[in-house]
Amino acid sequence: MSQVSVRDDEVDIVIAAIEPDLTSFLEEWRAIFSRFHLIIIKDPDVKGELKIPGGFNYDTYTKADIQQIIGPSNAATFSGYSCRYFGYLLSKKKYIISIDDDCIPAKDTKGIQVDAIAQHINNLLTPATPFFFNTLYDPFCKGADFVRGYPFSLRSGVSCALSCGLWLNLADLDAPTQALKPELRNTRYVDAVLTVPARAMMPLSGINIAFDRELVGPALLPSFKLAKEGKFRWETVEDVWTGMCVKVVCDHLGYGLKTGLPYVWRKERGDAIESLKKEWEGVKLMEEVVPFFQSMKLTPAAKTAEDCVIEIAAAVKEQLGRIDPVFTRAADSMVEWVQLWKTVKTRT
Amino acid sequence: MSQVSVRDDEVDIVIAAIEPDLTSFLEEWRAIFSRFHLIIIKDPDVKGELKIPGGFNYDTYTKADIQQIIGPSNAATFSGYSCRYFGYLLSKKKYIISIDDDCIPAKDTKGIQVDAIAQHINNLLTPATPFFFNTLYDPFCKGADFVRGYPFSLRSGVSCALSCGLWLNLADLDAPTQALKPELRNTRYVDAVLTVPARAMMPLSGINIAFDRELVGPALLPSFKLAKEGKFRWETVEDVWTGMCVKVVCDHLGYGLKTGLPYVWRKERGDAIESLKKEWEGVKLMEEVVPFFQSMKLTPAAKTAEDCVIEIAAAVKEQLGRIDPVFTRAADSMVEWVQLWKTVKTRT
Repeated sequence: MSQVSVRDDEVDIVIAAIEPDLTSFLEEWRAIFSRFHLIIIKDPDVKGELKIPGGFNYDTYTKADIQQIIGPSNAATFSGYSCRYFGYLLSKKKYIISIDDDCIPAKDTKGIQVDAIAQHINNLLTPATPFFFNTLYDPFCKGADFVRGYPFSLRSGVSCALSCGLWLNLADLDAPTQALKPELRNTRYVDAVLTVPARAMMPLSGINIAFDRELVGPALLPSFKLAKEGKFRWETVEDVWTGMCVKVVCDHLGYGLKTGLPYVWRKERGDAIESLKKEWEGVKLMEEVVPFFQSMKLTPAAKTAEDCVIEIAAAVKEQLGRIDPVFTRAADSMVEWVQLWKTVKTRT
Repeated sequence: MSQVSVRDDEVDIVIAAIEPDLTSFLEEWRAIFSRFHLIIIKDPDVKGELKIPGGFNYDTYTKADIQQIIGPSNAATFSGYSCRYFGYLLSKKKYIISIDDDCIPAKDTKGIQVDAIAQHINNLLTPATPFFFNTLYDPFCKGADFVRGYPFSLRSGVSCALSCGLWLNLADLDAPTQALKPELRNTRYVDAVLTVPARAMMPLSGINIAFDRELVGPALLPSFKLAKEGKFRWETVEDVWTGMCVKVVCDHLGYGLKTGLPYVWRKERGDAIESLKKEWEGVKLMEEVVPFFQSMKLTPAAKTAEDCVIEIAAAVKEQLGRIDPVFTRAADSMVEWVQLWKTVKTRT
């Protein structure tokens, strides 16, 4: 409804470098990223020097930096896609945006390049409406409003804590689905943002997200690592787990989570058939994970995102730990993460 | 995912004639409607002969028919927009579609005329997914699928009981909002269908809907009439109330409700400033209505849509009746409606 903006220095863009050469990725994003500070974390398993073109304002962190700050034992937590969480830990900004390094700017239906950063910021700065679904989508989008019947008392909305952007071209499928439908591409540009209703869970993807670090930063955590997890999104569910943690935290603390615009364009990477040979551990575990988060209730004692994560971790250990040791490890990681978050925050 | 279809004779299109001359309305829809049977109900308050162009397969009902079937005392229930409910009562078809007579076919972003009937049927025939939100919208749309992390056990979905279509041009605002923003028009064509998550409520609009009469027909009921309700959508909330009844029934019986495509184009009608002079009774009542439906829990004894409506009516009377007599009347109407539904069903 109204124009909203933030200062450029209130934003960190966090990039997980899964490949050391970020030249083509950053050139594609130059017009959009160059105003902002970048935090680039090199996947600790990756060899070779980071290549970053000139003209960007950035800090880079490698395995040595991770080990220095958090000690060698925890470094494994930050491998692969999860290395970005180290950036979340170090950021001091109110807003964090993270986009996978195999994505380039998308074009809208008119062929105009999408400014994913501006759209994410807009999503975060305008209220979310989790308590009643607006059939014309986000009422705070330009030209939109609340539909007849929407209670006036709910029209001011609540703070939006997270914005989940989407992807054109390579859709975010699991390995079996991608292998079964190798030709399937997402070509549908849906010109909408919506608040995911309170108490509804969804599979958050970490490919293209933005969040308010002050509200929910501690809930954006690396904790659900599969034993044989690879370097392709379809081999992981770490971000899906994280998303459900954040959603539970938002529902409990009264924040909203939006999904929809902005899109990014995902380039092809990996071989789904090859991934299929690995175990589909993540796919199986979701059968336990989703009902768990759907029924998760936090106590009134949980007043911050840190408190919430600690309560969720305890429930994970108690209710899911007996099913598979991966859950016990996840619960332990969640507790460690909150300690790490507090330590880093106190130190600086 | 797969092609779905119904026989033409499984569908009734119910039209509420708020104006007696339906010529231009039906000419606009000729290519889309003419295969199907129409049930046309003339608003009992409207004077003048119904005008219906040739080439359509239809039955019409007027005030005399209503009085003959349900008796004179109840005829008032079917005035204005609510006269369509009389058509719902008489239909014997599995699927009912209803579109306001001030709407014409919309065009999609490519300028192609939307077949609202085909799209509604597709929404109803493909499963709904109310238990986990799919970030790429309806996974049963062409070219779509379930996003990574979506539990396989939930991918078969549930029956879709209702499809709520949207509107371009004149948006469906309440009178105060329309009066405050007289220039506001909905121009955003959002190319998506989604299942409203379980337990989330939304303002269903009756402008452009389709439903499975066998699953939820008895819950599509006329019961929430405002004393000074007029003939413009923005002066009513009857359909919004009905929508929340249906949603509670769907959540309880395990059906889904979809919203999004198809769009219709709403022509201008009425004067919002003039409507503002009436009481904003509906707007005020929503403050009580929404929390009521959000917290509504039915008992396991409610096994059919009829049972559910009776339970909701009892709760309305008990919890809302003391706030305003309009709620007591609504509760009584709901019970009468179910009796009427059963009587008509037995009789034929």
